[in-house]
Amino acid sequence: MERYTVAVLVKNQSGVLNKVTSMFRRRQFNISSLTVSETESNEFSRITVTFDGEDCKKEQLIDQLYKLPDVCFIRELQSADTVSAELLLIKMQNDAEARGDIIAAADAFEAKTVDYSRESMVFQLTADSRRIDEFINLMRDYTILEICRTGIVSLEKGGSTIRKVTNL
Amino acid sequence: MERYTVAVLVKNQSGVLNKVTSMFRRRQFNISSLTVSETESNEFSRITVTFDGEDCKKEQLIDQLYKLPDVCFIRELQSADTVSAELLLIKMQNDAEARGDIIAAADAFEAKTVDYSRESMVFQLTADSRRIDEFINLMRDYTILEICRTGIVSLEKGGSTIRKVTNL
Repeated sequence: MERYTVAVLVKNQSGVLNKVTSMFRRRQFNISSLTVSETESNEFSRITVTFDGEDCKKEQLIDQLYKLPDVCFIRELQSADTVSAELLLIKMQNDAEARGDIIAAADAFEAKTVDYSRESMVFQLTADSRRIDEFINLMRDYTILEICRTGIVSLEKGGSTIRKVTNL
Repeated sequence: MERYTVAVLVKNQSGVLNKVTSMFRRRQFNISSLTVSETESNEFSRITVTFDGEDCKKEQLIDQLYKLPDVCFIRELQSADTVSAELLLIKMQNDAEARGDIIAAADAFEAKTVDYSRESMVFQLTADSRRIDEFINLMRDYTILEICRTGIVSLEKGGSTIRKVTNL
């Protein structure tokens, strides 16, 4: 089992998200994160999916996704030629004994404090997935109240774009 | 028509994402962004949806969503009592004439340059949605090659958590 990330460019048609996620489900891939977002054009949305599965089945999945009528382009995102990032919001219990340690770790990761109250502190961190995992792991030594993280967003380095490839 | 954001805490069951998005589709709400992400527990995922629609229908939608078996809790996110952020990656064409202006705007917004080549520049910006919209609007004066933004992630300020409310 490995973890993959694909970006799927779709037409903004009602139901297209369902069709795409159904395909993952039917092929028994476990989606770990999914982001749907507007693109530079109103006509298209971009679905970025991170999922676990086997390599051979992944190729079949991509072939099947291409058969869906509103799927325009699929790109597998490999870390070497893309810039990727994720955004984390994490709420920590504000215990007097833990506070100094938590703030030291947040500073080291350059996480931003976006809320501070007597009961809790909320940190915001934008980084690659591995760094976000590391920060969350560190925080597990203290009391995590809530975690909210986006899926991965990712663009290819250099001048190429998903649109150019598809001539959209 | 107004824009709303709701956070839906769901059990990690196959098909739950489809059920949730189908409900929006059937009620003719237009989803503008959607994020599914892991939470502090392996048992639950969090779906954050931003959508356009009318206030009276929104209440009906939330009632209907609660009837889905794997939906545990729904919270409408109001800006006053939440911290929210979005992450943007934007790839700009690297034209000699535009470069200075683009970099000046990126600096002003504290966007980070995450890729730079002869053909293009990629900026990463974490901010609230309005600020991200403003930055994209500024960039429209130049050549945008590609945009990728996550949906909104959002946590309530202070000590309360979505889990505590639901006793999960």
